Amino acid sequence: MSLQRDHLRWNGWGRLDTDDGLGERGPPLWAWLQQELGLPSLAATPPQPMETVPVPPPRLSRRHLTQLAKLSAPDRVVCDGPDRIRHAVGKSYPDLLLLRTGAPLLPDAVVYPLAPEVEAILRWAASASVAVVPFGGGTSVVGGVAARGGPGHRAVLALDTTRMEALVAVDEASRTATLEAGISGPDLERLLQERGWTLGHYPQSFEFSTLGGWIATRGAGQQSNKYGKAEDWLVAAEVATAHGALRTLNVPASAAGPDLNQIIAGSEGTLGVITRATVRIHPLPERRAYHAWLLRDWSSGAAAVRDLVQAGLDVATTRLSDSEETRFLRALSGRPRGAKAAVESWLARRGYDRPCMLLVGAEGENRAVAGTLAEVRRRIGRHGAFHLGARPGRSWYARRFHLPYLRDPILDRGLGVDTLETAAPWSSINALRESVSSALLEAAAKSSPVAGGRGAVLCHLSHSYPDGASLYFTFLWPRDDADALGQWQHLKAAAMRAFRMHGGTVSHHHGVGTDNLEWLRDEQGPGAAWLHAVKQATDPEGVLNPGKLVLP
Amino acid sequence: MSLQRDHLRWNGWGRLDTDDGLGERGPPLWAWLQQELGLPSLAATPPQPMETVPVPPPRLSRRHLTQLAKLSAPDRVVCDGPDRIRHAVGKSYPDLLLLRTGAPLLPDAVVYPLAPEVEAILRWAASASVAVVPFGGGTSVVGGVAARGGPGHRAVLALDTTRMEALVAVDEASRTATLEAGISGPDLERLLQERGWTLGHYPQSFEFSTLGGWIATRGAGQQSNKYGKAEDWLVAAEVATAHGALRTLNVPASAAGPDLNQIIAGSEGTLGVITRATVRIHPLPERRAYHAWLLRDWSSGAAAVRDLVQAGLDVATTRLSDSEETRFLRALSGRPRGAKAAVESWLARRGYDRPCMLLVGAEGENRAVAGTLAEVRRRIGRHGAFHLGARPGRSWYARRFHLPYLRDPILDRGLGVDTLETAAPWSSINALRESVSSALLEAAAKSSPVAGGRGAVLCHLSHSYPDGASLYFTFLWPRDDADALGQWQHLKAAAMRAFRMHGGTVSHHHGVGTDNLEWLRDEQGPGAAWLHAVKQATDPEGVLNPGKLVLP
Repeated sequence: MSLQRDHLRWNGWGRLDTDDGLGERGPPLWAWLQQELGLPSLAATPPQPMETVPVPPPRLSRRHLTQLAKLSAPDRVVCDGPDRIRHAVGKSYPDLLLLRTGAPLLPDAVVYPLAPEVEAILRWAASASVAVVPFGGGTSVVGGVAARGGPGHRAVLALDTTRMEALVAVDEASRTATLEAGISGPDLERLLQERGWTLGHYPQSFEFSTLGGWIATRGAGQQSNKYGKAEDWLVAAEVATAHGALRTLNVPASAAGPDLNQIIAGSEGTLGVITRATVRIHPLPERRAYHAWLLRDWSSGAAAVRDLVQAGLDVATTRLSDSEETRFLRALSGRPRGAKAAVESWLARRGYDRPCMLLVGAEGENRAVAGTLAEVRRRIGRHGAFHLGARPGRSWYARRFHLPYLRDPILDRGLGVDTLETAAPWSSINALRESVSSALLEAAAKSSPVAGGRGAVLCHLSHSYPDGASLYFTFLWPRDDADALGQWQHLKAAAMRAFRMHGGTVSHHHGVGTDNLEWLRDEQGPGAAWLHAVKQATDPEGVLNPGKLVLP
Repeated sequence: MSLQRDHLRWNGWGRLDTDDGLGERGPPLWAWLQQELGLPSLAATPPQPMETVPVPPPRLSRRHLTQLAKLSAPDRVVCDGPDRIRHAVGKSYPDLLLLRTGAPLLPDAVVYPLAPEVEAILRWAASASVAVVPFGGGTSVVGGVAARGGPGHRAVLALDTTRMEALVAVDEASRTATLEAGISGPDLERLLQERGWTLGHYPQSFEFSTLGGWIATRGAGQQSNKYGKAEDWLVAAEVATAHGALRTLNVPASAAGPDLNQIIAGSEGTLGVITRATVRIHPLPERRAYHAWLLRDWSSGAAAVRDLVQAGLDVATTRLSDSEETRFLRALSGRPRGAKAAVESWLARRGYDRPCMLLVGAEGENRAVAGTLAEVRRRIGRHGAFHLGARPGRSWYARRFHLPYLRDPILDRGLGVDTLETAAPWSSINALRESVSSALLEAAAKSSPVAGGRGAVLCHLSHSYPDGASLYFTFLWPRDDADALGQWQHLKAAAMRAFRMHGGTVSHHHGVGTDNLEWLRDEQGPGAAWLHAVKQATDPEGVLNPGKLVLP
């Protein structure tokens, strides 16, 4: 069953029938946050209703729309306002600003093709000079699906991939599955799990994102330590272009020249539309175990994670929150009282006064998980950790998709909030975290519209490798509604400069889109010309997702 | 210390002061092989001496050579006959045929640049229309380093990378090392091991191949299960081109667009010269344990390997020989006598009459290796294996670089010998092996110059993954010296057609070079245009390794 967009918030996160989930924890949380940000009060800044979003007439003629309908089906070419609004942008901070208060550019039409139709639609778009924005779940947080045309394009077509959602084949001996790329996370896992298998890819956007989107952006699931990033579990892909379909060979490894799969992974809809993919699957784990620890400080926590991953332990998740994020998570879970408060005070006297929480999860066969967990405890213990046990781990697991649901209520209260992520070698992780946090705090204080207003920066290390790790920053700030976009650009630039200074990549798993494009130039150097050349070869008309990823 | 080419066989394998290592095992081995191939006798077909290889005058003017010397150094630009002959070709079967009996095309000069000189040399070559063939160890078995020019090139320059051999840095926290790419296997491991580290990359060519060559061809070491193929351990690279140097970022993972490292890996010198690389390293293993088993047949052996690798065991090597290769290895190790013969006869009565040998190795900390080995024994036992213990494993390990040394004495006896390798999903491995073996046997019998002559085809599965494995074929045949090259093309085509029919890749770790180029077209499909476009962007003059990898 495809994603039903009319059941989802058009201008925020989640299903219409869900709320922020805070319940009675809400009021104290908001009071705490107000204090943290140095604000006398929180404003009320609700979004505009959908009705006030301007809907200009589509720039496609009746003739064009008829042609398009012939290539797919009349009921799968849609021009109505709500559908166009739902395909206008993704879920980045600038996207949400536009949806909440502005006039986003809308695609002129939305097409929902079946897989065999995509190639002809792209040929048509190329010949008619219509830009095509491939649109899966639409959860990009870097502007990757904004309905932008390029120079000379008469119109923009959103190509919604979510009707391509079949499980094509499972090769049990080889532990691979072939699926159509528009399938959503929940559908993919349901179909695999019915057969005893899992892909194990659970990004925070899992509920609303698609297989093709994960591949196109090199996504990472929360269990990436075990199951890998999209580029790791991708075995083969089929990519439709206006000039024929590219099918990579389904083999475990090859020396037949450069790896085309690794050009497709991360191509962000600019080279073609991923219609099908073969992926590595795993038997459903018998057991999942997530435990939490407190570390006395960030650097001993990072050393503990490094220890686990360099020892090659079969962990699924390693997630270390810095002391700021740990404080935030405690505030979110409600003020400690009674026995809990006594434990905290006992811990504080033992040096855990500004602790960092570390969560480690293992998944697999019962016996293997038990063995891994024992070795994890032994190793983490050597770094001065205090074991909190399985309860906070279970709680994290149960709420692991919840945090994005807090963004809309934060935006409703006159605040800004965004996330940024990077990856770097272990030798620069600690300096990188400090530098980015300081840069964001300084930029937030400078740009506060309220005297004394300040930012909050939370960081966690959530994907780890023998040679380094990714850092994920969540930052909140008093929003300046006189120039909310400019303020955000100022904050983002401060963080990106710190990334560059300490050798961090532009993105570990969000992608490039429009928002990271200018920062990509430094990272790619002359390599930008390589990507540009592939783009020219596969999309000479330049209709595929203009303005994203590929530097002009 | 660089590779000293004048200490190596110019027309074969190994150092001048080594021989085939067979000793008294030689005569019975040759007699056995003659019988296997259905031949009345073996011919004596020694190679020509170096002096009879035609050495035409270099096609570079004194002015050109002076320019080149200025860009490097006078003593690092060489035009003498022996050096040009040593840089004419690699070690493929057609290469050896040419060296032994023909007139190989020679490069017009050889330059041995230091890393900072490469870019200027490439600029010079581009402006002077001189083809450049990057030449590391020169061990390519697919024609990857043949001194070919392209249309309009006035001359061919071999760019010998082996003076670029420094260990630049070790990042112990991140477990990475940065090295110049011309460093040889033994030098690389010596420098790392002195510091307690290893790359763990031991291809059969280890003694004579280079880091840059491993990356450029997506090489695999014999312990690839643990240490990965070149594309797995490559973290970042520096590539010199005529239009600037490309440096990829040293990060553990990224979503900053397509992965340029995965275009560099497998680029075979056609996109630029890899001058430096950052690679993942490991602590030197405390213990290495290699054990052997006999399986009753191929398919139970393949199932055992699949079992190990899908269970995620930390094995370094899994190597399953088919019954033909197992017979050959027994013949090579000398006829069984006394107790050994009794054991074989005892085994034969229990269904191991045409057994397949399986070798499994583990490396790492003492305790971990012991645990892995116990689990390996338990799992392999379930597939009806007979445990031969550690002795055959030790013997294999000691002789693991030895087999290429047998090629020259085979060629000296009127025979042909070559190897081919591929990879495929587990679900097609068994059919693929049978199909390739049959195709080669049929082609060998058809093309035998002697009535009743036939081929021998040995196969092993030597690199395994959760989703599939590589197969490696060694085949011998009665050589037809009236048309040795045509006969080989006939054999190779038969095997490549079988690869394609069963979904095998053109190469798992040898690369494409010239010999696999025509077969690449089917595998890449429209992807060939992507690679072609990158080639155009980085080497618009087309001087880099013409005729290799990139389809015109």
